[in-house]
Amino acid sequence: MERQSLTLEDVAREAGVSRATVSRVINGVRNVDPAIRDVVREAIERTGYAPNRAARSLVTRRTETIALVISGAGEESDGTREDGRTGGRDDDGRPGDGVQNAFAARVFADPFFGRVVSGVVGFLRPRSMHPVLMVAESAAARKQVTEFLRQGSADGALVVSTHAEDPLPAQLVAEGLPAVCFARPALPVPISYVDLAHREGGRLAAEHLLARGRRRLATVTGPLDLPAGQERLAGFREALERAGTAYVPMAEGAFTRESGAAAMAGLLAEQPDLDGVFVANDLMAQGVCELLRERGGQVPQEVAVVGFDDSSVALTCRPPLTTVRQPVEEMAAAMAGLLQEHVQGVRTEPTSLIFEPELVVRDST
Amino acid sequence: MERQSLTLEDVAREAGVSRATVSRVINGVRNVDPAIRDVVREAIERTGYAPNRAARSLVTRRTETIALVISGAGEESDGTREDGRTGGRDDDGRPGDGVQNAFAARVFADPFFGRVVSGVVGFLRPRSMHPVLMVAESAAARKQVTEFLRQGSADGALVVSTHAEDPLPAQLVAEGLPAVCFARPALPVPISYVDLAHREGGRLAAEHLLARGRRRLATVTGPLDLPAGQERLAGFREALERAGTAYVPMAEGAFTRESGAAAMAGLLAEQPDLDGVFVANDLMAQGVCELLRERGGQVPQEVAVVGFDDSSVALTCRPPLTTVRQPVEEMAAAMAGLLQEHVQGVRTEPTSLIFEPELVVRDST
Repeated sequence: MERQSLTLEDVAREAGVSRATVSRVINGVRNVDPAIRDVVREAIERTGYAPNRAARSLVTRRTETIALVISGAGEESDGTREDGRTGGRDDDGRPGDGVQNAFAARVFADPFFGRVVSGVVGFLRPRSMHPVLMVAESAAARKQVTEFLRQGSADGALVVSTHAEDPLPAQLVAEGLPAVCFARPALPVPISYVDLAHREGGRLAAEHLLARGRRRLATVTGPLDLPAGQERLAGFREALERAGTAYVPMAEGAFTRESGAAAMAGLLAEQPDLDGVFVANDLMAQGVCELLRERGGQVPQEVAVVGFDDSSVALTCRPPLTTVRQPVEEMAAAMAGLLQEHVQGVRTEPTSLIFEPELVVRDST
Repeated sequence: MERQSLTLEDVAREAGVSRATVSRVINGVRNVDPAIRDVVREAIERTGYAPNRAARSLVTRRTETIALVISGAGEESDGTREDGRTGGRDDDGRPGDGVQNAFAARVFADPFFGRVVSGVVGFLRPRSMHPVLMVAESAAARKQVTEFLRQGSADGALVVSTHAEDPLPAQLVAEGLPAVCFARPALPVPISYVDLAHREGGRLAAEHLLARGRRRLATVTGPLDLPAGQERLAGFREALERAGTAYVPMAEGAFTRESGAAAMAGLLAEQPDLDGVFVANDLMAQGVCELLRERGGQVPQEVAVVGFDDSSVALTCRPPLTTVRQPVEEMAAAMAGLLQEHVQGVRTEPTSLIFEPELVVRDST
């Protein structure tokens, strides 16, 4: 790569300006005459000079890199809530899978994360920034994340927790490292986050089922130690309460397809004639629809099903799911924008950005 | 972060050695007395000094970072083969999704990529390395990738192509940038890659169906412009040929669930009484099983179905799929190991690492 042997001097000579001027342009210093800046940029283009980012970041103190951390909890992946968040569909102990490996495989098997990555990449790429992907499901892995940031290898961290007990957000705050979470941490921490008005989403589901004339309702909740699980349930209950329904059968799921089917079986045992169910995410709703089909139950004729997320499974589910849309891509992009403001120092206070859910009506209601 | 104001001098004072010695230890220079190295490391531990990675990489010329590139083809995502590789389950034009955004969302909706990420992270993390995630489905995005590497922001690239026409591998080779592909590029390029003995996989599927007593066989192939699509078909055909079967009905799919169902419908129109089908990936096999169920066909009683990959859908499919296992996690880890050898200069020639497939028998045969 002969090009890489090019120096600032070569560019300066080509542009007919001083080495210092070229350096200022490369490092984006403001007080540079636009005309001169263009001349230098053309010279860089012609010579094919590639400024060494390591060298530049010594000047700018910025790496233009951020960490995207998928974090769990505990000393190692305990295979419970990590399953809960991610579907646990790789539990057949594939050869070569370590604990972390299985954790990562499970996490990325959940369409939710593809949408997060998509939103983050969508925000960063136009800025020539790219996320460093880190998986932190153990104490050792979390230490790697904080070390990575302390060493200046990344300017900050975007954290997607899969577990209510995840200690990483608090550790990042304690170390004074810039970080933003996707969803409010279950443990109270002074950290910025983007989140959805989950309670409002539960209300939308309830009112839609009532509008469809359904009166024998039940709900499959998410993990009730996660704010999202609690809030979606609270919103659903509250709306039914206002409509005069004092009691709503409920069963807790773990955000997985299998746990959704199991929870639905329990609800049917309690109330065989129920005609509508709100399921706290699409993966569980898919499990619910499969169970109903196996038992010869018609969706939506006999039981109307409302999911949550509007993830890819909402479209591939038979029938396609009516669901409460969570704009994950936009939330992830906003999360990245919030982090950049913290990194640049234009925002210092812990900030929350709450998005509004939206009902998407398909064939399951 | 008072810690970050610590300097080499502080560590040197704490350790009672020279600044140069501390620097040599931090940069892993060989000729340092082990005893002294330990003293320095303890001093670093006690002081909590975090060497600035940018500064260190100026010395080592290594960033300890590699790019994991999911690449497409063309000026922009044309929504065809990208769909083909990734399932195309996000085609409802979600708000805020740009072309690249939709591409990334589709890509990460495919369980295949979770397994690749899992394997790559599994290899890198014990080495305190982490992948920078890049999505390159357009010419501009590919330029970003090559610039990123030329600037020394990453030591090399792991490339997962979603398109037969992907020009990125050739561009990386032309620029002399270290890179390894997952699967042999469709366009001939002198680049290292890991791949599967796809032909052998097709043979395993054929012999298993024959062993099950199935004689009226057909196959749903992958995209026939991808080596994997061609080879899986060739191996299946070859084995049937040896068993005396001169003609095998076939229909081409795009590696998506929907395309699998459509291809199967075509095959049934040609041969309504077929009793066994080899489907070139699990997502398509899932579509095939769904179509058969809708038409009241029993799997495996009436039609035996063999998939390919052993991805998470093989386990969630009804019935669970008999499939040809592709050890994606191990292949991805080997891909990262191969790249590291190229980066360290211990391996210079383009190298291929071929893995053997394995038949996993479940309930669909």
